[in-house]
Amino acid sequence: MRAVDLIRKKRDAGEHSREEINFLISAYTKGKIPDYQAAAWLMAAWIRGLSRNETAALTEAMLHSGEVLDLSALPAKKVDKHSTGGVGDKTSLILAPIVAAGGLTVPMISGRGLGHTGGTLDKLEAIPGFNVNLSLNEFRQVLAECGMALIGQTSEIAPADKKIYALRDATSTVENIGLICASIMSKKLAEGLDALVLDVKTGSGAFMKREEDSVRLAETMVETGTSMGKKVVALITDMDQPLGRAAGHASEIRECVDVLQGGGPADVRELSIELSAWMFYLGGKSKTVEDGRTLSIDMIESGKAFEKFKQCIRLQGGDERVMDNPQLLPAAKSSLTVNSVSSGYISGTRCEQFGTALAILGGGREKKEDHIDHAVGLEFHKRIGDRVEKGEPLATIHYNSDARLAEAQRLLLDNFLIQSEPSAKRPLIHRIIGQQK
Amino acid sequence: MRAVDLIRKKRDAGEHSREEINFLISAYTKGKIPDYQAAAWLMAAWIRGLSRNETAALTEAMLHSGEVLDLSALPAKKVDKHSTGGVGDKTSLILAPIVAAGGLTVPMISGRGLGHTGGTLDKLEAIPGFNVNLSLNEFRQVLAECGMALIGQTSEIAPADKKIYALRDATSTVENIGLICASIMSKKLAEGLDALVLDVKTGSGAFMKREEDSVRLAETMVETGTSMGKKVVALITDMDQPLGRAAGHASEIRECVDVLQGGGPADVRELSIELSAWMFYLGGKSKTVEDGRTLSIDMIESGKAFEKFKQCIRLQGGDERVMDNPQLLPAAKSSLTVNSVSSGYISGTRCEQFGTALAILGGGREKKEDHIDHAVGLEFHKRIGDRVEKGEPLATIHYNSDARLAEAQRLLLDNFLIQSEPSAKRPLIHRIIGQQK
Repeated sequence: MRAVDLIRKKRDAGEHSREEINFLISAYTKGKIPDYQAAAWLMAAWIRGLSRNETAALTEAMLHSGEVLDLSALPAKKVDKHSTGGVGDKTSLILAPIVAAGGLTVPMISGRGLGHTGGTLDKLEAIPGFNVNLSLNEFRQVLAECGMALIGQTSEIAPADKKIYALRDATSTVENIGLICASIMSKKLAEGLDALVLDVKTGSGAFMKREEDSVRLAETMVETGTSMGKKVVALITDMDQPLGRAAGHASEIRECVDVLQGGGPADVRELSIELSAWMFYLGGKSKTVEDGRTLSIDMIESGKAFEKFKQCIRLQGGDERVMDNPQLLPAAKSSLTVNSVSSGYISGTRCEQFGTALAILGGGREKKEDHIDHAVGLEFHKRIGDRVEKGEPLATIHYNSDARLAEAQRLLLDNFLIQSEPSAKRPLIHRIIGQQK
Repeated sequence: MRAVDLIRKKRDAGEHSREEINFLISAYTKGKIPDYQAAAWLMAAWIRGLSRNETAALTEAMLHSGEVLDLSALPAKKVDKHSTGGVGDKTSLILAPIVAAGGLTVPMISGRGLGHTGGTLDKLEAIPGFNVNLSLNEFRQVLAECGMALIGQTSEIAPADKKIYALRDATSTVENIGLICASIMSKKLAEGLDALVLDVKTGSGAFMKREEDSVRLAETMVETGTSMGKKVVALITDMDQPLGRAAGHASEIRECVDVLQGGGPADVRELSIELSAWMFYLGGKSKTVEDGRTLSIDMIESGKAFEKFKQCIRLQGGDERVMDNPQLLPAAKSSLTVNSVSSGYISGTRCEQFGTALAILGGGREKKEDHIDHAVGLEFHKRIGDRVEKGEPLATIHYNSDARLAEAQRLLLDNFLIQSEPSAKRPLIHRIIGQQK
């Protein structure tokens, strides 16, 4: 088998066999296919598309490029959640303690933020001392002790994905359903899961802006995971505006603490409970999703989820005192309010631009190497459907440097869409894809 | 400007500006764009296509990536011919001496063979001592002295093409009209030409097998060259069977000597005269193409073209005695006849397979690094339309090693197509694209 022939086949819109996909991934991971051949194949695959069979084969090949965790020594079912990302999306840090407190194991291997989206690892690192770089052995120990652990991708997990993702990023071959599915699912299934809940975002702040694309991605991931014997469900959820009131690392940790204490913004609480409910249901901890909701709420109200997160922070080297004393988290030096220049109703937002504003302030990465300022953040005062008066605050910027402050301010001001007539509030959960009772 | 954005633009079927094409080519040639980004762009360009404007911009950018010869010190008009390649295609070695003998300058920078097609440089190297690696200064001196010179691509000429061609070869992005046009025309126009005649092959032994593709390529090249102020004409010529009776380096030189002596196969003579006629016409040496034919025939009959080639061989270090004494050329040790297993009429050939048979015998390259055996060759006894009896010879194989002889034999036997009814002979020249009187 020769790479040049397989590139030609995909170029001419042919469908690869499982053996061909295995050859491509294995040879590329071992360095036997050079980057330039992989790049040509990726572009051909991006344009011509990958069939469901090709996507499943690609996912498996990438999964088996590295270690697949064997957590069978831990008695509880292993469940996880993956989100396709957005602005202010912090539910992982709420649902992981809820679900672990409820008796399931959550072996969460997460990513960092890039572009306008935030990353779970970056948020955790706002907690002084929190170590996301555990070895797989340490990861197992934390899991055994508290039922949850949150780490970054190690070199043992799906090394093919790491190599391919970097190449896709540099060759404009990121946004393709088959390639995205294989990237996400190969990493998640390497966690040795029994069940997986997918939070596929849709709207102006999501990776997939159009609902039909989100649905196609969700269907592909559900089908791929199911074909590999896993219980998988996807929730298509709204990302047409930021999730919650806070975007920015330390401020999102504060918001998570609020929710774990029974408070916090309604949307963050609702989505965290909904995702937890599905995890309980797929993990066999509840007979129905409705029972899962009840269990999730109980884990919050009883304080068990709060204590679970505290335990996890302690076990991963972090300063658990932030949970009772959030002012120990990094805070920005200055703040500035962005006031509306007109009166009316919020009809929508260009949510991606808010993520860009946060990155400009230092709270995100434009390039992979960029340093993150965990203290800076954005605070949103208005949601879609809300009435706003001229001069009334839309958002508050918490910043450390005014180098690009005007630019961030402009992005916030320009990307709340205001109309004279009230518009409908958007549902948080648009639909559910996959097995249901 | 960023490569990743330009890749995205072409991926999404956008049209590049001249500035964008210049950036891509200049940055890639300087090593500022890595191979993998260039490969992704090439695949996007292959699939999405390049417009006429993009093709012209690409040609100019590649042309100006290196030196453009200034031959203004030589008083005669500079004309050249380029062929898209085939099996037994040796007209360059006949028309160059004809046209130089007729008073024009032929600054011919040629390529080597790859795959099933032969290369002019390889054929010349069958002549003992012939040096195709002249410096550009030596090239100018030979041109000044005898009006023709035949060398290989130097590092000064269109370095972008050299780098891009190697990448296209490894990434299955060769067969695209815009990319082919830019590759050919950038090198040819770097010769500082006034006029160019293109021999675009069509049929089973050609790069472009379908006539409509050959016509599209011809039109694109003619338009691109014309837009850059050159006189350009393309002849669409037949490559559904080998040109002449001989394929293989030394045996093709012998056939060229035959034609320059007034003999040789009719098709080789006809095509050489036709191409020469157009070169004379475009170079202003004849008032009409018909006059160009007369002049070409006169150059052969008078022996002037024969003497011109001898002079060129001498000036480029070769053993000119081969012209009068072709047994000084390398010869294969053994030969074997391939006889027809049925009776009927030759209706066609899978001509590309004959080129592959020659390569298998050592007379071609499967990989760029392969060594060439100039002595081996194929001799064809039948042409399309000919009657053949069972047991009658179809071809003779001249070989040095019987390592893969059976494979070559099989390729010859299987790829003459024989039918019971006589089929029409194919015209040699299908059509002419570009300016005509």
